[in-house]
Amino acid sequence: MTDYSSGILFGGDYNPEQWEESTWQDDFDKLSQAQVNSATINVFSWPLLEPAEGEYDFEQLDRIMAHLEHNQICVVLATATAAVPPWLAHKYPEVMRTDINGILQRHGKRHNACPNSPIFKRKSKALVERLVARYHTNSLITHWHVSNEYGGTCYCENCAKAFRVWLKERYGTLEAVNQAWNSHFWGHTYGSWEEINPPMRTSDIFSSGKPVLGGAALDYRRFQSDSLLENYKMERDIIRKYDSKRPITTNFMGSQKDLDYFKWAPELDVIAWDNYPSLDTPASFTAFSHDLMRGLKHQPFMLMEQTPNQQNWQTYNALKKPGEMRMLSYQALAHGANTVQFFQLKQSRNGAEKFHGALLSHSVSTQTRVFQEVAQLGGELAQLPQALIESEIHPNVALIFDWESYWGLENCIGPTTQLDYVASVYRYYQALYQQGIAVEIVSKQDDFSPYKLLMAPSMYITTDEVTEKIKAYTAAGGVFLTNVMSGLVDETDNIHLGGYPGQWRELLGLTIDEIDARPAAQAVTLHSATGIVGQGRTLCDLITPTTAHSLAWYGDETFYQGQACLTANEYGTGCAFYVGTYLDDQGLAFLMTQVLKRSQLAAKAAGEVEIMTRTTENQSFTFIINTGEHPQKIMNPYPDAYELLTQTNSPTDLELAPFAVIILQQDHE
Amino acid sequence: MTDYSSGILFGGDYNPEQWEESTWQDDFDKLSQAQVNSATINVFSWPLLEPAEGEYDFEQLDRIMAHLEHNQICVVLATATAAVPPWLAHKYPEVMRTDINGILQRHGKRHNACPNSPIFKRKSKALVERLVARYHTNSLITHWHVSNEYGGTCYCENCAKAFRVWLKERYGTLEAVNQAWNSHFWGHTYGSWEEINPPMRTSDIFSSGKPVLGGAALDYRRFQSDSLLENYKMERDIIRKYDSKRPITTNFMGSQKDLDYFKWAPELDVIAWDNYPSLDTPASFTAFSHDLMRGLKHQPFMLMEQTPNQQNWQTYNALKKPGEMRMLSYQALAHGANTVQFFQLKQSRNGAEKFHGALLSHSVSTQTRVFQEVAQLGGELAQLPQALIESEIHPNVALIFDWESYWGLENCIGPTTQLDYVASVYRYYQALYQQGIAVEIVSKQDDFSPYKLLMAPSMYITTDEVTEKIKAYTAAGGVFLTNVMSGLVDETDNIHLGGYPGQWRELLGLTIDEIDARPAAQAVTLHSATGIVGQGRTLCDLITPTTAHSLAWYGDETFYQGQACLTANEYGTGCAFYVGTYLDDQGLAFLMTQVLKRSQLAAKAAGEVEIMTRTTENQSFTFIINTGEHPQKIMNPYPDAYELLTQTNSPTDLELAPFAVIILQQDHE
Amino acid sequence: MTDYSSGILFGGDYNPEQWEESTWQDDFDKLSQAQVNSATINVFSWPLLEPAEGEYDFEQLDRIMAHLEHNQICVVLATATAAVPPWLAHKYPEVMRTDINGILQRHGKRHNACPNSPIFKRKSKALVERLVARYHTNSLITHWHVSNEYGGTCYCENCAKAFRVWLKERYGTLEAVNQAWNSHFWGHTYGSWEEINPPMRTSDIFSSGKPVLGGAALDYRRFQSDSLLENYKMERDIIRKYDSKRPITTNFMGSQKDLDYFKWAPELDVIAWDNYPSLDTPASFTAFSHDLMRGLKHQPFMLMEQTPNQQNWQTYNALKKPGEMRMLSYQALAHGANTVQFFQLKQSRNGAEKFHGALLSHSVSTQTRVFQEVAQLGGELAQLPQALIESEIHPNVALIFDWESYWGLENCIGPTTQLDYVASVYRYYQALYQQGIAVEIVSKQDDFSPYKLLMAPSMYITTDEVTEKIKAYTAAGGVFLTNVMSGLVDETDNIHLGGYPGQWRELLGLTIDEIDARPAAQAVTLHSATGIVGQGRTLCDLITPTTAHSLAWYGDETFYQGQACLTANEYGTGCAFYVGTYLDDQGLAFLMTQVLKRSQLAAKAAGEVEIMTRTTENQSFTFIINTGEHPQKIMNPYPDAYELLTQTNSPTDLELAPFAVIILQQDHE
Repeated sequence: MTDYSSGILFGGDYNPEQWEESTWQDDFDKLSQAQVNSATINVFSWPLLEPAEGEYDFEQLDRIMAHLEHNQICVVLATATAAVPPWLAHKYPEVMRTDINGILQRHGKRHNACPNSPIFKRKSKALVERLVARYHTNSLITHWHVSNEYGGTCYCENCAKAFRVWLKERYGTLEAVNQAWNSHFWGHTYGSWEEINPPMRTSDIFSSGKPVLGGAALDYRRFQSDSLLENYKMERDIIRKYDSKRPITTNFMGSQKDLDYFKWAPELDVIAWDNYPSLDTPASFTAFSHDLMRGLKHQPFMLMEQTPNQQNWQTYNALKKPGEMRMLSYQALAHGANTVQFFQLKQSRNGAEKFHGALLSHSVSTQTRVFQEVAQLGGELAQLPQALIESEIHPNVALIFDWESYWGLENCIGPTTQLDYVASVYRYYQALYQQGIAVEIVSKQDDFSPYKLLMAPSMYITTDEVTEKIKAYTAAGGVFLTNVMSGLVDETDNIHLGGYPGQWRELLGLTIDEIDARPAAQAVTLHSATGIVGQGRTLCDLITPTTAHSLAWYGDETFYQGQACLTANEYGTGCAFYVGTYLDDQGLAFLMTQVLKRSQLAAKAAGEVEIMTRTTENQSFTFIINTGEHPQKIMNPYPDAYELLTQTNSPTDLELAPFAVIILQQDHE
Repeated sequence: MTDYSSGILFGGDYNPEQWEESTWQDDFDKLSQAQVNSATINVFSWPLLEPAEGEYDFEQLDRIMAHLEHNQICVVLATATAAVPPWLAHKYPEVMRTDINGILQRHGKRHNACPNSPIFKRKSKALVERLVARYHTNSLITHWHVSNEYGGTCYCENCAKAFRVWLKERYGTLEAVNQAWNSHFWGHTYGSWEEINPPMRTSDIFSSGKPVLGGAALDYRRFQSDSLLENYKMERDIIRKYDSKRPITTNFMGSQKDLDYFKWAPELDVIAWDNYPSLDTPASFTAFSHDLMRGLKHQPFMLMEQTPNQQNWQTYNALKKPGEMRMLSYQALAHGANTVQFFQLKQSRNGAEKFHGALLSHSVSTQTRVFQEVAQLGGELAQLPQALIESEIHPNVALIFDWESYWGLENCIGPTTQLDYVASVYRYYQALYQQGIAVEIVSKQDDFSPYKLLMAPSMYITTDEVTEKIKAYTAAGGVFLTNVMSGLVDETDNIHLGGYPGQWRELLGLTIDEIDARPAAQAVTLHSATGIVGQGRTLCDLITPTTAHSLAWYGDETFYQGQACLTANEYGTGCAFYVGTYLDDQGLAFLMTQVLKRSQLAAKAAGEVEIMTRTTENQSFTFIINTGEHPQKIMNPYPDAYELLTQTNSPTDLELAPFAVIILQQDHE
Repeated sequence: MTDYSSGILFGGDYNPEQWEESTWQDDFDKLSQAQVNSATINVFSWPLLEPAEGEYDFEQLDRIMAHLEHNQICVVLATATAAVPPWLAHKYPEVMRTDINGILQRHGKRHNACPNSPIFKRKSKALVERLVARYHTNSLITHWHVSNEYGGTCYCENCAKAFRVWLKERYGTLEAVNQAWNSHFWGHTYGSWEEINPPMRTSDIFSSGKPVLGGAALDYRRFQSDSLLENYKMERDIIRKYDSKRPITTNFMGSQKDLDYFKWAPELDVIAWDNYPSLDTPASFTAFSHDLMRGLKHQPFMLMEQTPNQQNWQTYNALKKPGEMRMLSYQALAHGANTVQFFQLKQSRNGAEKFHGALLSHSVSTQTRVFQEVAQLGGELAQLPQALIESEIHPNVALIFDWESYWGLENCIGPTTQLDYVASVYRYYQALYQQGIAVEIVSKQDDFSPYKLLMAPSMYITTDEVTEKIKAYTAAGGVFLTNVMSGLVDETDNIHLGGYPGQWRELLGLTIDEIDARPAAQAVTLHSATGIVGQGRTLCDLITPTTAHSLAWYGDETFYQGQACLTANEYGTGCAFYVGTYLDDQGLAFLMTQVLKRSQLAAKAAGEVEIMTRTTENQSFTFIINTGEHPQKIMNPYPDAYELLTQTNSPTDLELAPFAVIILQQDHE
């Protein structure tokens, strides 16, 4: 049995219930050739465990567990609540979600339960109680996997009722709700709690998807994220009642929009996530996603799912090229993953995911390219030292990711419809990634003091508390950077009055009266004393510096020619940068040069070579990864360090074949 | 107190109920700096005035009125019925609309009441009765503002019932309905009134939005426009019962599609409208919209709303450039506006419109560019002479705008889906605008005799009565122009048989058997005796002239090469022009040269300089406006006339800076 | 009276019920000028025949029949069930369909009845019984026309119930259903029949339109096609009860998706179809559609509808050019049509189709271009010899069209969303069309032995039975060709395991482990020993030949460079070709050269000249058609043959004006 604390979990989703039992042992014989040591099971088995209401049948699962034990494969045991069984939806239609158009769904798809359905809660609780009671003593289990890829939204009457309770708890009085939401707008003043409905297409959401009352929409998102979290916690608590030790998790999905993962993270023992880059996802975006997931707890995480080959739901599901899956696996490790798990171990014969890649493909052969690559990786991972798993990552730069700003910004009507929170945050991540500078993604609740540079792009929502923390951070010598559409509103979408960006004007040393919106094709040139330094697009703040100095100003395409666009404001012993537009590459490079200089940060790498270092007290492990298809050469940053994968000393010049990975181990006393 | 009859109303929407009362006086102090003399209030206050069914509370409104009185701001008092209060929707779901997919809406958005809901009618009547009874003696009020921006469509059972009553009144018998609609088509013959439903996506409307029975769809549009008009008239009658004098209006929205404004106009004392050009709206389209609004009553109108700066609902909400708001305000006056009102005086902190511009922006400062520009304008307007307000506009050219043709044309299935009524009408307006020739927009009910030229583009629907009127007009020396897709059907979409365009064949001296549809990229060259004179697109009539002569004919891209495309038919002492295609700029210029010549009309201006003259018996006021961003020079058409804004005599050559405005006053005895 | 067995039916849809009876005789006078000998009537007359429940009124239809008899026009008598009358939908809402979003439709449109509504079945049966009982002795009737253009899908509770019955009949047990559908996927295991619902947007269909369970979606399509077929058969049986002789049909629509026409065809006495090419439909696609329709019974068919001029529902409804309607009519004859019928004889004044072309247009004149062209054609057709009508078409090449593969392929999630069954099949048809090689379209049930070449592109679904038949065909000397995405799954979408394409690996001499998906712009060059032979797109199979030899392989754009893409496998005395990608024109030409050579087939024509031969035992009729707008010259393949239309001997060189048609008659002993 693999001991999770002493190695890398290597395996993934396995659905033997889809196959004749007579074929199972053949699967295991093959999986063992790839050094698979873990299987995630039982994700969608509710109707098998409870084929009719109250009739439980764990015999097949017992047999699956027995096979796994016999084959020395440890288990990530899912709670089987990720899809409601047909009988439950048929007997109790309310367990299904009602969509944004007010249409109650019938049985189908997955992740389909209303989180506020009393019946769903009761039935899922009963199932999980029995499941955990039965298996909690099984030493095969390394992790508990609650439900699956939580997300989505329900708009039913049970949610409406629960929303009103949630609002009462948050606001106390209806008057406070009316005030928080500025509901006198368009005659929305609520006279009783019952009048409040979920904001939906058939009520207060426009066909654009944007709401009339921003505060109501924000609160409904908070409420739905909390509702699913309650589902999770209910299951978590049952498990914890029986099992005080083994880690409990659920699998996350990077920068998805529905759940405020920072609010979820404390309830998980370890973060797990599913990494599905599409064929045009840049390596830097995958890195960003890993760092976001690591940042949730600032701890290593589980790479719970990736495909060994192609996906199935994209327009074009390209094959991963030879070496690409291996590269992506090491990239995950480089950013903090401590497991390499696949969806899936054996490819379904049928159903929506039948063309999703798997270790055991439809060929049912171990002689495939994909099987061989996975098997090779399994062998390598088994050799990695325990110290690597215990190592951590400590960047000097922090980047705030804020789900509330994500929701608020993308709900905002004006100054443009072209507002994309993730793209805006990623843009600044990417600027540092290209310079080889590691980034820690943080929440607004985190301590900023360890960082030399703190960036908060598109941080649309601010509060007194966060503002004070950023001011204190900057005053104490930190470098802060933010940009257009940041600092505009409070937690229920009320503009901070007195000039934008409300609470941050003093910190940034400026005030903004107007925000121009310009068609993407009508860029504005940006000028510094030395000439044109780039272009701004889509939005342009009309900045009036008070104490800030102007780094660049708008060109003559606009009536605000000469007005500041990029500014820096010395504040205490730190400095606050402001970017009043969406920058092109040249403009961003110009800006970051100055930001890095002021932050005393130095660039490290270039091109498609990614360098990430994980450290323990005594050792460091530097991953040097060619994320691209072209050979790369770089100077070895740690010449003569020990190269883990080849088990040799490393040379002065590193030549990296396409998708090549080097891990340099250094020992410190 | 400003006396409306002796000056220009300057102000706009004001929503103090969204703010702490302690802030109100500060608003007024600032507004007075901009010479604001009017506030439009109470538009969305129903839930504040009636917080629960039958419980009325006018105290806050009393306080608002008191503040306004104290600050000498007169009032446009809205009736607060533009959005139903949450309690009403909650208690009586039927007051909300049912959408085209048959889905009953829940509370949300605005303009959300079913016009045929008995409960909505009863409750809104009760509210308005109390409101008017309470305030009708208040001398602060200059205008009553019923509801707000009426529009939209409901498809509920109450509407279905009311539609059947409406049909009975119009047709008398079901047999007459079946005949009018040609309902034997696709087995739609109705056997009882109850079988008739609103045409909707779930019944007789295709996913393209087009109906099976054109007559039914036309009648449903007429019925819905009438239903909202009944709502308006109900409120209007209550007001008139108490107040015999002050003008009653509601705000219109230019060439919107839902309401037949020509049918509404007689019920309003003064036309009011909301002008929201987007960043790519040409000045000529804004002029067209003003003229359409003036044409509704052939009287001056109120510019009820415009934004002082940016809008919020466009893809890109560009700032108005320095001088642009002022230019647009004068352009409105030039076309007949007698007020300059803004949405809004104070910018909301929250809600869908929080990024919509306002005089008092989120900066809460009077030092903003926008405030300063508005204040300057306020000062200028206060100086304009009373005679200007009393002046009128009398063009020589009439252009028919016909909501029924608008509806019918865009519902028509074939010969192409590319049918855009407004674009087609505007195209001919623009051709004259570019020549500096003023246009009066008229309804088919109007007297055409005052005009030298009458244009009826895309006038899809004709009746005997209108046809006779146009024939008489032309026979008596008028010049008439119409084009492809005109004169095709009767009032319930039945083709006038015998060759297109039915009733107009004799007038036009031609007959048309076929209409070709061509992809937009496949233009056809048009030839006259002197060579190529332009191109035709999208639709090409195959014209056989009888008495008409051919001005131009199709080129060799088509099998109908040589067949007439542009024709003129001498008719009595007048002439009828026909345009058998959609013309490009060159073709339109070729055509209009001949049309103007035959009409004895002379071109006046060019480029981006707009010239409009308002006259009284004794004076004329000529507005010369540079609508663009580039300086313009023109010869002064009235050298040495008195220039109102600079209060000087005007020179021979006029130099107009970007957005510059000149008003030349001339006195006649 | 025209005797159908001795001439070409020439006429079309006629709706006199839309017009005053006083106008009817004038119509007939005009129709006779065009030699019209047939009218299709009564298609949408249910509410006229039964104006209220149980009240029948055949008097108007009697008068219509009397007029037709008086004017010697024979009748295709429709059963009037193609649209439910308003009273039926009003009284019994369940007769209307429920759409894929679960919304019950109200009365409107056409083809609107739920096929499983007991009330619809009862009421339509009662109507048809009375209709047939009344008219079956009328010698005017040449054909019975059941309903009209069957299609569409319903998702109501009646359908759900009937679906469960259908499933019980097909599978016997619920366990068999669970197994067939692999329903353990995503926890879909069904515990009772009642839990099974139609796959729809609100249940198991994604917003992309693709299902979670492919087998369920396939079965629902089969069930709905069968349900409509039951409607047809119910009516057919009533008619046959009264009339043992005259052919019964309904009109088909080419390669539409909803109905499995091969399953329907045996129930029809003659295939009839409606040919509506749009302005950019290639002549080869029209030919393909005719051949598909002929292939349904491998017998001549009725061209039941075409427009004499323009359609009305396209974006641009171009006029048919002079000669084009005639050319299209002869093209239909060339491919097996024995009738030339139009929709419609007289153009509606109103309703969705008022701009659809007709013989008698809105001009109500016989002097129109269109009338004259139709009249000329009527005269020509009347002269054609009876032998032509009795002739048949016997190609050497068979192409499988398989509605189940059509459904399955386009429901498949991955490897790309760009899967278009008809386009893929048509691509191979077109390759032979361009070479002048006639193709018989066959079902998988057909006997393949008469053909030298059998092609099965995109034949996604295979069974043991079909596989064995193809193997036997090939082993016995046939040439077989198939391509990417073929042979992948069984009848309920379960992958045939062991490497793609499952059951066909041995036949093709290869195995495939992976299918790459590539954006359309990223083509891969294909190489043979002689250099680049074309490009592959979208999907690329990674082929490992076992016994096949490689005709071409991938270029260096991919990591599978050098791996086989086009292969040929000698099998018995035949050969099986495999195409592992979507080929560009060059690649397809390269391939087909080798395929034709191996099949001993020779190319015949080129360019836009189409050559098709119909034969009897003693004669052959070769149609030579210039389908395009440019003159063409070709060598006469049968010099000195008798030319039917000009009634002359034909020359050595044929010059064909645009849209020209030549019919060469040859007599054999």
